[in-house]
Parts: sequence; structure tokens; C-alpha cells
Amino acid sequence: MSDTGRDGLFGALFGRGPAAAGDQDWLQAMLDTEAALARALERAGVAARGAGAAVTEVARAELFDVAAIGRQAVLIGNPVAALVRALSEQLPAGPARDAVHKGATSQDIIDTAAMLLARRAMDAIEADLSAASVRAAALAAEHVSTVMTGRTLLQHAVPVTFGLIAAGWLTAIDDARRDLTQVRVTRLAIQFGGAAGTLASLGDAGPAVSALLAEELGLGEPVLPWHTDRLRIVQLAAALAGTCAVAGKIARDVTLLAQSEVAEVAEGGGAAGQGGSSAMPHKRNPVISVLILGCAKQAPGLLATLAAASEQELQRAAGAWHAEWLPLRDLLALAGSATSWLADLMAGLVVDADRMRANIDAARGLPMAEHVTAELAPVLGRLTAHELVAAAAVRAGRDNIGLADALLADAAAATALADSGIGRAELAAATSPDGYLGATVQFVRRALAHHEEGA
Amino acid sequence: MSDTGRDGLFGALFGRGPAAAGDQDWLQAMLDTEAALARALERAGVAARGAGAAVTEVARAELFDVAAIGRQAVLIGNPVAALVRALSEQLPAGPARDAVHKGATSQDIIDTAAMLLARRAMDAIEADLSAASVRAAALAAEHVSTVMTGRTLLQHAVPVTFGLIAAGWLTAIDDARRDLTQVRVTRLAIQFGGAAGTLASLGDAGPAVSALLAEELGLGEPVLPWHTDRLRIVQLAAALAGTCAVAGKIARDVTLLAQSEVAEVAEGGGAAGQGGSSAMPHKRNPVISVLILGCAKQAPGLLATLAAASEQELQRAAGAWHAEWLPLRDLLALAGSATSWLADLMAGLVVDADRMRANIDAARGLPMAEHVTAELAPVLGRLTAHELVAAAAVRAGRDNIGLADALLADAAAATALADSGIGRAELAAATSPDGYLGATVQFVRRALAHHEEGA
Amino acid sequence: MSDTGRDGLFGALFGRGPAAAGDQDWLQAMLDTEAALARALERAGVAARGAGAAVTEVARAELFDVAAIGRQAVLIGNPVAALVRALSEQLPAGPARDAVHKGATSQDIIDTAAMLLARRAMDAIEADLSAASVRAAALAAEHVSTVMTGRTLLQHAVPVTFGLIAAGWLTAIDDARRDLTQVRVTRLAIQFGGAAGTLASLGDAGPAVSALLAEELGLGEPVLPWHTDRLRIVQLAAALAGTCAVAGKIARDVTLLAQSEVAEVAEGGGAAGQGGSSAMPHKRNPVISVLILGCAKQAPGLLATLAAASEQELQRAAGAWHAEWLPLRDLLALAGSATSWLADLMAGLVVDADRMRANIDAARGLPMAEHVTAELAPVLGRLTAHELVAAAAVRAGRDNIGLADALLADAAAATALADSGIGRAELAAATSPDGYLGATVQFVRRALAHHEEGA
Amino acid sequence: MSDTGRDGLFGALFGRGPAAAGDQDWLQAMLDTEAALARALERAGVAARGAGAAVTEVARAELFDVAAIGRQAVLIGNPVAALVRALSEQLPAGPARDAVHKGATSQDIIDTAAMLLARRAMDAIEADLSAASVRAAALAAEHVSTVMTGRTLLQHAVPVTFGLIAAGWLTAIDDARRDLTQVRVTRLAIQFGGAAGTLASLGDAGPAVSALLAEELGLGEPVLPWHTDRLRIVQLAAALAGTCAVAGKIARDVTLLAQSEVAEVAEGGGAAGQGGSSAMPHKRNPVISVLILGCAKQAPGLLATLAAASEQELQRAAGAWHAEWLPLRDLLALAGSATSWLADLMAGLVVDADRMRANIDAARGLPMAEHVTAELAPVLGRLTAHELVAAAAVRAGRDNIGLADALLADAAAATALADSGIGRAELAAATSPDGYLGATVQFVRRALAHHEEGA
Repeated sequence: MSDTGRDGLFGALFGRGPAAAGDQDWLQAMLDTEAALARALERAGVAARGAGAAVTEVARAELFDVAAIGRQAVLIGNPVAALVRALSEQLPAGPARDAVHKGATSQDIIDTAAMLLARRAMDAIEADLSAASVRAAALAAEHVSTVMTGRTLLQHAVPVTFGLIAAGWLTAIDDARRDLTQVRVTRLAIQFGGAAGTLASLGDAGPAVSALLAEELGLGEPVLPWHTDRLRIVQLAAALAGTCAVAGKIARDVTLLAQSEVAEVAEGGGAAGQGGSSAMPHKRNPVISVLILGCAKQAPGLLATLAAASEQELQRAAGAWHAEWLPLRDLLALAGSATSWLADLMAGLVVDADRMRANIDAARGLPMAEHVTAELAPVLGRLTAHELVAAAAVRAGRDNIGLADALLADAAAATALADSGIGRAELAAATSPDGYLGATVQFVRRALAHHEEGA
Repeated sequence: MSDTGRDGLFGALFGRGPAAAGDQDWLQAMLDTEAALARALERAGVAARGAGAAVTEVARAELFDVAAIGRQAVLIGNPVAALVRALSEQLPAGPARDAVHKGATSQDIIDTAAMLLARRAMDAIEADLSAASVRAAALAAEHVSTVMTGRTLLQHAVPVTFGLIAAGWLTAIDDARRDLTQVRVTRLAIQFGGAAGTLASLGDAGPAVSALLAEELGLGEPVLPWHTDRLRIVQLAAALAGTCAVAGKIARDVTLLAQSEVAEVAEGGGAAGQGGSSAMPHKRNPVISVLILGCAKQAPGLLATLAAASEQELQRAAGAWHAEWLPLRDLLALAGSATSWLADLMAGLVVDADRMRANIDAARGLPMAEHVTAELAPVLGRLTAHELVAAAAVRAGRDNIGLADALLADAAAATALADSGIGRAELAAATSPDGYLGATVQFVRRALAHHEEGA
Repeated sequence: MSDTGRDGLFGALFGRGPAAAGDQDWLQAMLDTEAALARALERAGVAARGAGAAVTEVARAELFDVAAIGRQAVLIGNPVAALVRALSEQLPAGPARDAVHKGATSQDIIDTAAMLLARRAMDAIEADLSAASVRAAALAAEHVSTVMTGRTLLQHAVPVTFGLIAAGWLTAIDDARRDLTQVRVTRLAIQFGGAAGTLASLGDAGPAVSALLAEELGLGEPVLPWHTDRLRIVQLAAALAGTCAVAGKIARDVTLLAQSEVAEVAEGGGAAGQGGSSAMPHKRNPVISVLILGCAKQAPGLLATLAAASEQELQRAAGAWHAEWLPLRDLLALAGSATSWLADLMAGLVVDADRMRANIDAARGLPMAEHVTAELAPVLGRLTAHELVAAAAVRAGRDNIGLADALLADAAAATALADSGIGRAELAAATSPDGYLGATVQFVRRALAHHEEGA
Repeated sequence: MSDTGRDGLFGALFGRGPAAAGDQDWLQAMLDTEAALARALERAGVAARGAGAAVTEVARAELFDVAAIGRQAVLIGNPVAALVRALSEQLPAGPARDAVHKGATSQDIIDTAAMLLARRAMDAIEADLSAASVRAAALAAEHVSTVMTGRTLLQHAVPVTFGLIAAGWLTAIDDARRDLTQVRVTRLAIQFGGAAGTLASLGDAGPAVSALLAEELGLGEPVLPWHTDRLRIVQLAAALAGTCAVAGKIARDVTLLAQSEVAEVAEGGGAAGQGGSSAMPHKRNPVISVLILGCAKQAPGLLATLAAASEQELQRAAGAWHAEWLPLRDLLALAGSATSWLADLMAGLVVDADRMRANIDAARGLPMAEHVTAELAPVLGRLTAHELVAAAAVRAGRDNIGLADALLADAAAATALADSGIGRAELAAATSPDGYLGATVQFVRRALAHHEEGA
């Protein structure tokens, strides 16, 4: 478990972009916390003048042996004591060295470092979501009237437009982003409480140092140290899992619309040649969507782990806190990868409006069965209309003819229609998808307006 | 899976209070949705005058056979079609009957009903959290200076006060409640999109009916139908799981502080006789805390199910939506039960300040080892001080004497102390927990102020 | 949370068959345990002669008020004490009454009752899996050579046969059933340890009573009471979740193959009219598969809850045990429903071999691209062959012509082919799916043989 | 996500021992698979003589640039194509190069590599469990009669012995190991099916190559390729999670028994100085147990992810397969770390039998309340006995006296006792824990015998 950074065998898939923090990133975030603490201590008058700058000067990850620190982590169960020792050794004996880690407990350092990494990840994720939403908005606007088959339970339903699908993606992306932003702004906070959350070793100076530490790091200051109140971890994880949920839904749609038999969209983004198959030259796999799903499907389990880990004992947990580190690191990386891929997916998505039209036309009017029934109901009665149309739909499928023709081909139905003054022209209108889109355009406009408000 | 209501073998434990919705509640919520839809249709001019009142009149759960409706759910995979049929049969043929379910799809009804039940549950949960927080605030204020042993990794650490523990509980409860309130206010919304989210069967009237339906039910109107955008379900589930997390942490603390060997708190609330054991007359089990943990531990898995179910296909999911109903119902019930028990727990909690004092005194000054070391460090050097105190701590434990005595009993230590002008009085002060509480009082005050702001 | 039985709003969907235990079933299972204990005590000479029969006589669920017992469960945190009281009241004061619950703790009764219900559920599940496997075997045999398009990442790949798909389902069903059988036979066991797992209140007679209790119930006798060793619960849950995994995979395949655009299979089983849509008369939804997925998707979260609940403290858990009851009950019901639906799905599945053929023919030879490349590689070199075929595949898609024609239509490719002695006939053979099935028939036969061995 | 190997910041905690596979291990396992395939192809006469040895010669991870391969993984969504390319480049053009990857698809390589790594991990885990069980057996035997307080719901219950606790640990370890062994022996298998599971590109030779590949690797040959039948992954994950469950339960017990107030056991194993605190010199944290819990608590979420990922589409999954790699890798590493730590924990556990005795003596007879009640019941009646003892228990607690004294101090109770011929001696016997151990010794012996059988 040394590293979830961008390098390595699976790093380009699941550790994409700045949300994926490797060991060096973790080390630097812990050092940043220690350095900020030294500066805060100095500003509060608890550490000597110059101590902050001196610690900050040496708090650079490249000066440290991460593997050695990792090995020593077994002594207290986390790497902070070894880090503090190594950091102290970078300084001459004296006031700066004495300021190192003063007042802090190891959980203060790891939790605060995690918050710094979360902020960096969320910045990247929000930027990717923003980029993806701009593209989704453009697709929604462009295809507001691009008619296609709606599909429910993977069966043809009534018509929709591709713009409406894109509008749904857009709204989901926007909402996920807003949720992330809110958690980032209101719930990321330093951890600083000392051994049992009282900052006792700082005497009266604790609160002042705490406020300055938050200021130095640009993180919020919590009401209290939150060593064993993990609600903010649950909230952070939930916002990340929500982001994965949104990305996963979109990717699932793309894999379905890109199926060989459907072929209404194709992936166009990503690396040159992405989607090929070494063995099968004809294949154009939706690799980006597959990777998004590969990331997103890992989120619920990690979220569950983090939620379950919230049951933490008294002033410091015996195991549940330790159980958070990897899942949180991985959830940040996976949400970051999913959204990074999502931005690529949206940027390159190829929409085949002609194929959409061809597919719905090939459905022989069946997606319009609801509409035809509704048109016939006032004259024939609801039940009779439903039965006539259902029977015609079966015949249309069996005989490979259109719904309108199937209705007219049946003597009883034809008579009923004629008696009701419903002729071929009326049937043609009723079986045209373009006239059965209801609120589609308005819904797309609402999604665009909602997007503009939050931009 | 007929019912998660309050009755039954486990209902009093896990289905406590109005958050636990039984079949009758679900049926009524669906009927409320259908009735509101009829009124909205009438107000929008789509249904005949009087249709709303007529449907509302018969939309009472007691008029329906829930078991029969449940049996027919197998036909389309959910109970709505059977409910619509039964509801229609309560009305004479005519305009009111024709208005039933007009424009809606079965998911519109179930999702909206779920939102109504979620609102009812959240109202109850927020009220229970509010009550619990009032008690936690009182405990924090009363015990702001009640010194006790802080415990980290289940080992004695430095002193805290019980007020600080209660303040931690308070802040967690307050934050969980705010999160719930926000989700309730901003994310609960009607579902209304018809067969594929276009409201096509209502022609141009869809948006107007949608707005009126939201108004009738007092729920938000979404930007778009959210049939396969399940972010708000994930957010709702996360807020409920966060609530369970907070309740579980508090209950865990109580079980630990109530241990026979610790006995610093005891449960006093709940039913008369609660906590007894039929076989062991001496037992006073922390039954309420145990039940809170029993509820809370079920939340992460349900949250994971709901987060995973967010990957929903195109315009209607083939299974993932169906997989939401029971977990959401159960999560609402469990969060409701956990908070209902939490309110009881806080109301009845018995705090034994004398025992807290006795326990820390019995620790022979060991929780003060950090402080003593810090006091000695300036004169002896950090390393020497740490070694002297660590050795003395071992002797104190072995010989069952106080830390101060153990230090003085060691010749080398005694000499070092004497040379440094640290006498018995200074040692006594350094080993007194009352003088080593740091920011405790300020932290408690901050938690109380934060509570007042949000009250 | 009163009941997960077969009745109620969602019971026909998620509580199908004997695996779904309602409150009455739980009550009866607990009473069966108490009755068996009385008989065991009598046989061991610890209870008076006749006590076993007397207790057994009144241990009938219909004599008890489950709601009243449920309400009293709050006193000790489970319903056993109330049940014991009510059971005792059914008996006159005297030796039979004195034998009630003798030696037992409440966990003994609930855990043993859960094992009885698990056995009943597993019997039903194994029978349904067995029925499903018989049908899957028949499909595999019948369609061993029914060629269709293989699909990877939802894109056309090389050909398979439907028999191979059915063989894959068959093997999965068989393996899931064997796993369940093994857990049922080797891991279901009574729980009997008394207050702290020592059976102290029975003096020397504990082990004898324990052995007789196991014999009375036909359950295994564990090495030790397993109050806080929950491995067998994890193993039981895993076998159930594995069953759901298998059912879910098959249902996912059916939903995909039944898509309007694919239409290679259709559901034919289930209730008359199943799969219709009230609003859309043309729809034929794969309702059974959707319900299987609806069940199966709930399993992983429940499994996680049960696995996490295994961390149980010392001699009796403070919450984690309580957290098991509902998830285990629900997992049994959901696995039972999923397999009951699976048996229906397999029984009624309609396979459209003509459509399979039509679909692969309509793919214009593209699924054969791998084969064509392999045929060309020896003469053209692998790279050149790959490039020629890939380019031809693009042209075939663009121009709506066959892969062979596309190759021949390209001057360079045509020349290369001619130079290599590969003519139209060779190309036709290379693009015929029937000649590119490899080990398909052997694999199907292996699956059938494996099935026969385990039947 | 580059590496979960033993190095790095958290590797010593969560990536301990050979179960933790880093990128180099994955690369080697994939190369081992490709090399074995080349040998199998040669033995089946499909590849040229010498091809197997030639490929095997260069299939060494140190010859490859894992980072470069990882970067190219984005093209097809996994690293195999890049690996195959790089492996081919290690060979001169010719028959050996032509044999590389022949017949295989990328999933064949990754799945088979995962099985190789699983086998290595399971070997290590089973060895650690075996070592831990030997120590647990020794503890059970040594302390078969070491009386201590039984604790239920974290409250004093009736007496147990430490040997019984150790016997419970022993049986759980033994059962977890047997489960792992069975999965390893019966469920680990090669994956080899080619593009869509038919091995079509090998013509008739597929099954022969498959059998030889299994032989070369020492893995089982499955009935069918299992590309989208993931039951064996679920079973593997469940066995690993079961192992974590057992380790977690034991670690939880140790943290509780090692609490400052209880102090009946202490950790003695692990690295020198393990368990110290930099700030608090008196602390002796149960670091090993904390780390076991830190590992074990991550298992249920990973298990849920793997179970949910079992819903895989048709012949190759679009995302769900990709979602397996990291959770499986992490679950292997975490189970390996947990058991490695468990072996250390058992090896070094310090049992303080005197403190156990002192603690139960300090309980003033209260753990014997059940026994006293049982002794009094025949003479006083059950209800009266229960009431007398319960009242005495309250007084004993309040007045800090023994239960026997409390009974005798009450006039009514004293009279009742005297009338019944129960004197001080009888009461003393009834309140002695040594006489109330029931089947404890037999249970311990059974656990030891069960252990011997499976050794």
C-alpha cells in the first residue's frame, strides 16, 4: 500500500489527475501541516521568532526518506512520530527544533494533511465537473430537438430528445459539483487538539494557535477538535460518492447508447487509438465510459467503510481511525479519475442524430403506442383503445409493419377508427415522434438556466 | 417484506417513531400523491372541475386492500398499476376517474411517496436530535469542569472533563441536524415526468401541472424529472447515515463509560426496568446504547446499496430503482429509531462525577505523565525527562504508587529533580489533573455558542 | 420492521417463497427452539419427565401475541425474555414451567431460531436453483450450436452460441448451489451457551443437553458456543450473496438480450400479463429479470453489514449482534426471492434463434474480423493484416457493406489478397461465424457433465 | 494507485508480508501467465518448439518499464496489450514472438495473474493463521482454569476462564483457515477463453492448451472460462473477509481486556518499543490490535464492492470487471496484514492471571448473582430469590460490600436464608466463581481437539 499516485500499473486508469495523492503528496501535506503549526506557534508567541520559517524551510518532502518513515510507523501505528523525529533532525538543536509538533498529536497531523489533500482533490474534481458541464450544456442546447427513442427498463418507450438526456446529465453534474463545493467550503477544517482534545500542553495558548493554524492553511477552524466526531469525513465521502454516482450514470448511458446495435453515440475523446482491441480490429470500445464505471463502482464500498468507521471510541479510536486512511485516499483518487475521464468523455462525445432518427423510425411507430392510445381513448374508451393498440403492436412486431398499418389492417380496429373519424392522416400524426415530446424543450431550457445560475 | 412499521417482533427496537413507515403509510403516501395530482390537474385545467376533490375523498388507505395490491405488483414490478386500478374503482366512471394518474408513470408515484415519507421521518428525526442536543448542551454546561480521565486507544491519556465529552456529542448532533435540514429543504422534491420524463401525454400542460403538484404537496419542484438521476437519494441516504454515525459514536462512548470497571455514566432513561437481565439480577445493561448501535451499524451497508443503485439506465432503470425501496425505507426507520433512542439516552443519562474523580485519582498520576515530562523538559532536556518519567510510570504501575512518589523514589530522578529545584509541591501540582485542562472550558463554551446559533 | 413475510405492499416482489420469514415464522422458530430445549433437558434428566412434551404442546405461535412480545423487547433489547414469560404463562406452575428456557440465554434462542429459518430458506433456495439449473441445462443442450453474436464491453465481439451462454449460467447456478449446500450442511448449528458461554447454570449437564438439543433440531453442534464468533454468519451471508450474484448476472444478460434493438430472448414465464405497461401498450418489459436485479443489488450492502457486525465484544456484543437480525432476515428473503424468480425466468425464457442469426448476419462480418485477420496474417504479416482488416471494418460500417466486400473493394487489399491466393470463397469462409466457434461445443458438454455430477 | 506493496508510508501497516502485491508482483504474475501460456502452446503443438522456453526466459518483471506499461493502459482500459507488446519486443521476430499471448484475451492474463497472487497471499495467510492458532491453543491449554470475569454488553456477567476465551479465538482461527484452504484448493483456477470465451482463435486446440496452462501454473482448470461468472471472486473475497472478521474480533477483545481499568492482558509482541506514545510516556497502547482492527474494518466494504461487481454483462463486463482489481488487491493485502499482525499478537500476548483474579474478586460477588439466585430459588421460589438478590446487588454496589454480606445485612433476606438453612458458608460457596464454570473445561478441550484434527 505504498502509493496511489499517478504512476504504476493501474495509476493511469484509477489515479488520474491531482486528486490521486501518492506517498510524496501525503508526506508533503503532513510537512505542510507541521510547518504551518510552527508558524502559528511563532505568531502566537509560543515558539521562538524565526521558528516558523526555519521549520518551513526544511519541510520539503524530497528531504525525507518516505520508506524509512513508513517502516517506523509500526511503532505507534502511524507515521507521524517518525516524521517528527526526521523533521527535527533536519534542524539544529534549539528553538526551531523545539517548536516542531508542539501541542500536536499525531492525529492532528494526519487529519489536517488529509483535509489539505481533499481540498486539492476537490479543486480538481470541481474543475473537471465544470468542464464536463459546459460540454453537457452545449450538447443539450444543440440537440434540444434531436428526436430519439426513450428507453425504459431497456425497452423502447416514448420519444425523447438527445438534448433532454444531455440536460439530465448536466443537472446531475451541476448538483454534484454544488454539493462538493459546499462540503469543501463548510466542512474542511484543521484538526488540532493535542493528546486528548484539550490542547493542554499549550496552556492558555491553545485556541490562539488553533486559529492561526487554520489561517496559515486556509482551512476552516472547527468548533472543537473532531478526533472522534467523524461526521465531516462521512460528508466528504458522501459528496465524493455522489460525484461518482453521477459520473457512473452518464457512463452507463453512453455504454448503452454506443452498443453495436444502437450506435447513437460514440466516444471520440481520450488518447489516440483509445478503444481499439488488439485482437479484434473492428472494435471501438467505449473505454472511457468503461473506466468511469470501473472507478464509480468502487465508491459505494469505500463510502460504507468510512461511514462504518465513524463509530470511534472516546478521545481516540482504537482502529476505526486507522481504517479511514486508505479508503479516503482511494475515494479521492477514484472520484478524481472518474471526473477527469468524464470531462474527456463529454469533450469527445460523438452524437449520431441520423442514427437516432433511423432507430426510432425503425421502431415502426411502437414508441408512439401510448400516444395513439390516448388519441383513441376519447372516442373508443380507454380500455378498448388500449386493447386495440396492444393487439396492433403485437401484429406490427410479428409482421414487421408499422403500428398505423397494423391498426388499419385489422377489420375491427379499422371500423372503429373509421367510425371515430380517425383516418390515415390522423394516425400518421399520432405515430410521429416529433409531435409527442411534451415538455422536453422547456425541461432542457430549465436545465440550461439552472446551469447558468450556478456557473 | 410486508411492513417495517412499529408493530411486530422487532418493531419497537428498530421501527420506533414516525420515521418507520409501514405498508399503510406507504399506501397513504402514494394515495396522497395521486390525490394531489388530481387536484393539480384540475387546477391546471386538464382535469374536470371537482375531480381533485373526488379523488382526494377516496384516497384513504383504509379503503384499500394492501395485500391484494401487493400481490398484483408482480405484473409490472411495482404496486402502482394495481393501486391506480383500485383507486379508479372507488370512483364512478366519469371525469374524476379519468383524472386518476393522468400524465404520471408509476415511478412518479413511488418516488414522490418516498419523498413524503422521508419528510415525515426527517421532521421526527430533527426533533429528536434537537431534544437530544438540548440535553447534551445541559450536560456540557453542568460538567464543564468535571474532571475525568481522557482515554485514547482505550488507554488512559491526559485529563478531560465530562463537559468536553458532552460538548463533542453536542456539536456532532447539531451538525447532523443541520445537514438533515438542508437536505430536507433543498433536495426533497416531487417526481413527475411521465413515461420517459417528457410529460408528453399532458401536451403543453406538463410544466404547469408539475408546479401545482409540488405546491399541493409542499415539496420542491426539480429542474427536471429525476427518474434516473439519483443524486438526491444518495444525499438523503448520506444525511441519514451521518445521523446514525453521530448516534453510534455517542452510544459507543456510553457503553464504554458504563462498563462495570469504569462506571462513570449509567443509562437512566427508557422504559421502567430497561436494562435488566432475566438471569443475572445484578446486571444493569446499557440497553438504549446497545439498541442505538444495533440501528447505527446497519446504516453503512444500506447507504452503500443506495449509492450503488445510482447507476440507472437511460430513462428508467432495470432493477436499480427497485433495489432502492427497501433500503431507503429501512434507513429512514433505523435513523429514526436511533435518534429516538438517542433522545431517551440523553434525557436519562446519569453522570457519576465522584466516580470520574475517583478513577482519575486511582490512576496514580499517570495521565499526567505528559505534563510532568513537559515540566521537567526545560531543565532536564526533553529526552532525559521522557526517559525518567517513562521509567517512573513503569514503577508506579508495578508498585502501585503515585507517579510523583515513583519519581522521588528513584535516586537518579530525585537528584535531577532536586538539582532543578523541582520539589514535592511542584510535582504535586504537575500531577494534578485540574491544572492540565488547556482549552477545555473555551471549547465547551464554543460548542454551546455554536448550538445556540443553530437552535 | 414488523414483518418481511410474503404479504404486504412489496412482499410479492422481495419476500417470495418460504425463504421470507415473517414475524410468525420467527416466533415459531424461537418457540421450536424453546420446545426442543425442554425435550433435551428432559432427556438429559435435568427437567422432569413430561416437561418436554408439555412445553412442546404450547409452543405454537398462534397462542402468542407477537405485538405484545415485540413491545416488551425494549426492556432487555430483544424479545426473548417476554417470550419466555409468555410461554411460561401457558403452563401451570410446576416442573414443566420450571424447565422453560433453563440454561439458556436470549442469544441462544435467537441465534438458533435464525439457523432454523436459514435452513428452511436454504432448502427452498437450493430447490429453486436446482429447477433453474435443469432448465439452463436444457437450454444449453438445445442451443449448443445456435450461433449468435458474442458481446464484450457491450460491443460485438466474435461469435458464440446461445448454448454457451446457457452453459455459463448453468455452471454458475450449480456452483452457487453447491456452496449453499456446503454451508447448510457444515455450518448451520445450534447456539447454546447460557449467560457467558459456559452453561454454568446447568452444572455438569451442559454438554449433554447441548448435544441433545442439536439432535432434537437436526442442526449441528458447534465445537463451542459461538456467541461472539460470527464466522458462520459471514459464511452464510456470503453463500446467499453469491447466489444473488449468480442470479443477478443472468438477469442482467436477459435484460440486455431482450432489449428492443436486440430481441434475441424474451421472458415468457411469470404471471399472466407480466411485463405489460399500463400506459404503453407495446411494451413487454423483462419484469422478472428486473425484479431479480432489484433483489440481487441489495445483497452486497447486507453482506457488508453482516461482515462488519462480526467484530463482537468478549462474551456478548453491545450492538453488533442486534445489528445482524434484520440484514440476515432480509438477505434470506432476497436470495429466496431472487432464486424463486430465477426459476420462473429459466422456465419461461423464449429464445429467438432466428433473430440471433439475423443479428449476426446484419453485423456484416465484423464479428469475424479477428478470424479474417488471423487468416491473413500468415501471408501478409500480422501488422499488415490487422491494418487492412481494421480499415475494411471502418469502410464496411460506413458504406453498410460486408467485411469481405469491403476488403475486396479496396485496391491494395484486393491485390494483397489475390497475391496470397485468398479469393472470395476463402473470404466467405473466414467471415462465416459457424466456422469460428472454437471450443464452444466442448465447453457446453463440460458444463453439462459438471451439472450431471452434481445433480 | 500504483502500488500496494510493502514499501511506502502506510505499507508497513496495511501491506505487510507476501499477501501485499505491488506493481512488480502484478507484472511478474502477468508475465508468469504469458510464459506458462507459451509453454502450454508449445506442448500442445500450437507454438513452435522452444517458444515456451524463449518466452519464459524474458518474462522477468525487471526487464520491463512498469510505468510505461501503466501509461499505455488507457488505450484499451487495461495494461495487457502494452505488456504483450513489450514482451514481444523482448523477442526476435519469429516463432517465439508469434507464440506470445496466442489465443488469449487481456482478461485471461489479468484474471489468471490475480489467481496466482491470491494463491501466494493465501499461502502466507494460512501460515500466519496456523502460527496464531498454535499460540491460541497454548493459551487455551495453559489458562483452562484461569478464572476471570465474563463480560456481556461490556458489563460483568458470570465467570469464565481465560482459557475459554482463547479457545473461542482458536476455533475461529481454525475455521477461517479451513475456509481459506478450501477456496484456495477448489476455487482458484486459470482464466483462459480468448475474446469471447470460445478459444476460437486456437481452432480445435483450445481445450488442450487450457489444460496444459492450468498444469503449468498449478492452478485448477475451470469447467468453462469464467469471464463474467464471478462467483469464485465473491467466494475468495468472502473467505478473506471472514479471516478479517476473526482477526478483528480477537483484536477487539484484546483492546478491551488491555484497557487501563481492566489490564488483564497486554501486548508483548511486535517491534521493540511498539505501543509507546511520543507525548505520553506512561502509555502502552495495544498497537498491534489497533492495526488489526484498522485492517479488518476495511474488509466489509471491499467485499461489498466485489460482490456488487459480480453483475457482469454477457461475454465481458463494461466496468464491473475493472472495478475488481483494486479491491481484490487491497483485500488480499489487508487480510494478509491482519493475519500477520495476529500471529505477532498471539505470540507476544501477556496474560495477567493475578489481575484477572483480582478483578473478579473486586466485583464483590456480583458476577455470581445468577448462581446465588439459582441456589436460593428452590427454597425461596424463583421470583423471591431474584428480587432478594437484585436488591442485595444494588446495596453491594452502593455500600461497596460483597454480595453475600449484602444479603446477610438485610433482615428479611437474612431471615429467609436462615429459614432455608443457607448459611454464610453456603453463601460463600455460591459466590465463589471457581465453582460456577459449568462446561468450561470440556469446551476448552473440545476446541483443542478440533484444532488437533485440523492441524
